[in-house]
Amino acid sequence: MKITILQLIDFLGDNLIRVYGSCEDAYIDNLADSNHVNEYTLDWVISKKNNKQEIIESSKAKCLLVDETIEYTSILNEQSKVLLVVKNPKQALAKVGNHFFVKKPDPGIHPTAVISKSAKIGENVYIGPYSVVGDAVIGSGSHIDSNVRIYDGVVIGKDCDIKAGAVIGGAGFGFEKDEEGNRFRFPQIGGLIIGDDVEIGANTCIDRGALSDTIIGSHTKINNLCHIAHNNKIGCNVIITGCVNVSGSNIIEDDVWIAPNASIRGYVHIGKGCVVGMGAVVTKDIPEGETWVGNPARKMEK
Amino acid sequence: MKITILQLIDFLGDNLIRVYGSCEDAYIDNLADSNHVNEYTLDWVISKKNNKQEIIESSKAKCLLVDETIEYTSILNEQSKVLLVVKNPKQALAKVGNHFFVKKPDPGIHPTAVISKSAKIGENVYIGPYSVVGDAVIGSGSHIDSNVRIYDGVVIGKDCDIKAGAVIGGAGFGFEKDEEGNRFRFPQIGGLIIGDDVEIGANTCIDRGALSDTIIGSHTKINNLCHIAHNNKIGCNVIITGCVNVSGSNIIEDDVWIAPNASIRGYVHIGKGCVVGMGAVVTKDIPEGETWVGNPARKMEK
Amino acid sequence: MKITILQLIDFLGDNLIRVYGSCEDAYIDNLADSNHVNEYTLDWVISKKNNKQEIIESSKAKCLLVDETIEYTSILNEQSKVLLVVKNPKQALAKVGNHFFVKKPDPGIHPTAVISKSAKIGENVYIGPYSVVGDAVIGSGSHIDSNVRIYDGVVIGKDCDIKAGAVIGGAGFGFEKDEEGNRFRFPQIGGLIIGDDVEIGANTCIDRGALSDTIIGSHTKINNLCHIAHNNKIGCNVIITGCVNVSGSNIIEDDVWIAPNASIRGYVHIGKGCVVGMGAVVTKDIPEGETWVGNPARKMEK
Repeated sequence: MKITILQLIDFLGDNLIRVYGSCEDAYIDNLADSNHVNEYTLDWVISKKNNKQEIIESSKAKCLLVDETIEYTSILNEQSKVLLVVKNPKQALAKVGNHFFVKKPDPGIHPTAVISKSAKIGENVYIGPYSVVGDAVIGSGSHIDSNVRIYDGVVIGKDCDIKAGAVIGGAGFGFEKDEEGNRFRFPQIGGLIIGDDVEIGANTCIDRGALSDTIIGSHTKINNLCHIAHNNKIGCNVIITGCVNVSGSNIIEDDVWIAPNASIRGYVHIGKGCVVGMGAVVTKDIPEGETWVGNPARKMEK
Repeated sequence: MKITILQLIDFLGDNLIRVYGSCEDAYIDNLADSNHVNEYTLDWVISKKNNKQEIIESSKAKCLLVDETIEYTSILNEQSKVLLVVKNPKQALAKVGNHFFVKKPDPGIHPTAVISKSAKIGENVYIGPYSVVGDAVIGSGSHIDSNVRIYDGVVIGKDCDIKAGAVIGGAGFGFEKDEEGNRFRFPQIGGLIIGDDVEIGANTCIDRGALSDTIIGSHTKINNLCHIAHNNKIGCNVIITGCVNVSGSNIIEDDVWIAPNASIRGYVHIGKGCVVGMGAVVTKDIPEGETWVGNPARKMEK
Repeated sequence: MKITILQLIDFLGDNLIRVYGSCEDAYIDNLADSNHVNEYTLDWVISKKNNKQEIIESSKAKCLLVDETIEYTSILNEQSKVLLVVKNPKQALAKVGNHFFVKKPDPGIHPTAVISKSAKIGENVYIGPYSVVGDAVIGSGSHIDSNVRIYDGVVIGKDCDIKAGAVIGGAGFGFEKDEEGNRFRFPQIGGLIIGDDVEIGANTCIDRGALSDTIIGSHTKINNLCHIAHNNKIGCNVIITGCVNVSGSNIIEDDVWIAPNASIRGYVHIGKGCVVGMGAVVTKDIPEGETWVGNPARKMEK
């Protein structure tokens, strides 16, 4: 697929600050990592690199996304390079990539999906093969992949992305003992409320609340194979990476970052903007903005 | 849904010690956590709380489950509160919740479930959409959710609950090297025997034995995203919480509690009633009743 | 199922060094662990055991796989034992087990599998119920179990084994921030290239690359519930056990062994033949052949 520089200019719109070089016949046809750049790659230079000028001059690509600190040198001119100047080259590249190179299935519900008659499905929703949806609400523009299970009482916002095999809104893991000492489930009848633009990774499980609701804030991104237990209140723009276990009834504020395979104990409060390290075992509250690592987790000193 | 106090009295039966207050017209219509109690909530007070009397007096609910230590004060009388006195209020609440508020699908096998002709399915079993069952035995009253895979040679007891996406009885992870140094699987032809009233969480995987059987005792509860490898012998009333990895050939006795994201090495013995801490990495036998934590796990001193 | 000793001799072929004892009417009909051996078990003795001669004499089995160090004593003769002498008894047992005792489904694509018209499926491939395959390549002899999701752009080699619920080639977990500070996905348009004879465990997730490819080398074996993130380059004969998290963009060389529930940070290099311990949290490069354990992981001194 050829994308002309004029198409790129049109797409970037107000984000484009300036264009250097002649772009009449130029086009790109791929994105690539730095080892695989060719003449038709849309290349880019991360703003924080020191030797940006040099990287651009040595790139095999004809067209690059760059920031305002770049000079259009005579070398670049001789190379007939086209520079698209934007504030944030990597962000611009991501937008170009998502628009021109990422294929998405058309909205629609696959005929094999089993959907409760009481479910409320918004507009432009995609639900893939072999997914099973109970009495749930799914907001417009959301994408539910294949083999997903969504239970009764789940409310999913707009533009969410739920990957294959995720299990959303199952009964939580809470037990009482009966007269003979055998455990039986405490009723798990709360809901699960998911905001807008939330991503839930493949085979990740998020439990409904016991008596109150489990809540996941907007723009939060959860990776594959995570377990989020009942009654958690998770804020917005939280990042939960792969294989994380979040036990029940925590409060996790906005902009927290939880690294892979970390464990959060239950009934703790993790303040805004905290970072929980890889494999950290969090057993206490973490004040706003702190980074905790280790088993048991402790504040990381710089 | 309105449930009259008379219905509750009838349901509680012998568990009810005494009723305080007039209950002729009273009813409840919800259960709630302490922040969301309203007039029609069935509220309860945990027996071990110190200020129980005060909690009950300030509850917005008209009807509460309480223990025998409560006095029916003039304040409670003025509030027209109804107190249902039981030995264990939380246990009673759980039973009321499970009976009146938890919806369960009717027994039956969804038409899309793929079941081997040689499978033996008990009475009142539910098997959900897109589950695939080999030559297995499933005991009466068991509930198998959607997208579950049960392989040949699995025996599941009565009243078990297997959540969506679980993979039960797959081949274990054991390899030999061939003449060229490449690994190939050691045959995994043992069975998997699961007792009665066992819960297996969403996307959890339990492998069949290699040459002997993997065994899971009755009333054991396993949460989401756990991996139980081949040849484990796990006792009764064991609690295995989220994201736990149990490697092969362990013996785990009754009443053990394994906290989230713990790892058990393989070929170890964990004594009756032990507690394994969150994120603990267990590399040795643990004597009966001890609590071990950390990486590597060590006995926790009080 | 009876398997005569003559059948075993025929199957072992060049691997058989010598036969002791008379085998005309002898047969075996099972494999078993040491606690369950009976007269018709094909028993074996691991070469490294010290008291091999004694073990063989006290085995209830009539037929055993043994190595060349064994003597056919008068006791064995009186017991009418048949010894099949091979270089590696456990390897031979595994081959016999896989050939005679492991049931495999016949090749074929289950009618419920949803396969893209652009997928390229080799010969003798099995694809189980409710699996969903995009524009992918699946090599001859590979076995894809049920409820598996394989996305566009995945290339799977020959004789691979992908267990139930695995999610292969999903979009990786990489985000940029937009102008309002909300995260959006960096395009994940690389491929996922899997070699020959690779095993991928149940509910394991392996992400496609962002701009380059994720690569899994031949004969590599990955257990259940692992997360392998985008851009990893994993070598041959690597063992990744249960619940392991491999973050993005690592290089993991041949013959590495990663124990359960370990975490690998991302952008690290793990040298050939390394061992990563159970629950280890790897944040740095590991030189060839070393064993690292702990949180954070450090070199294990002998």
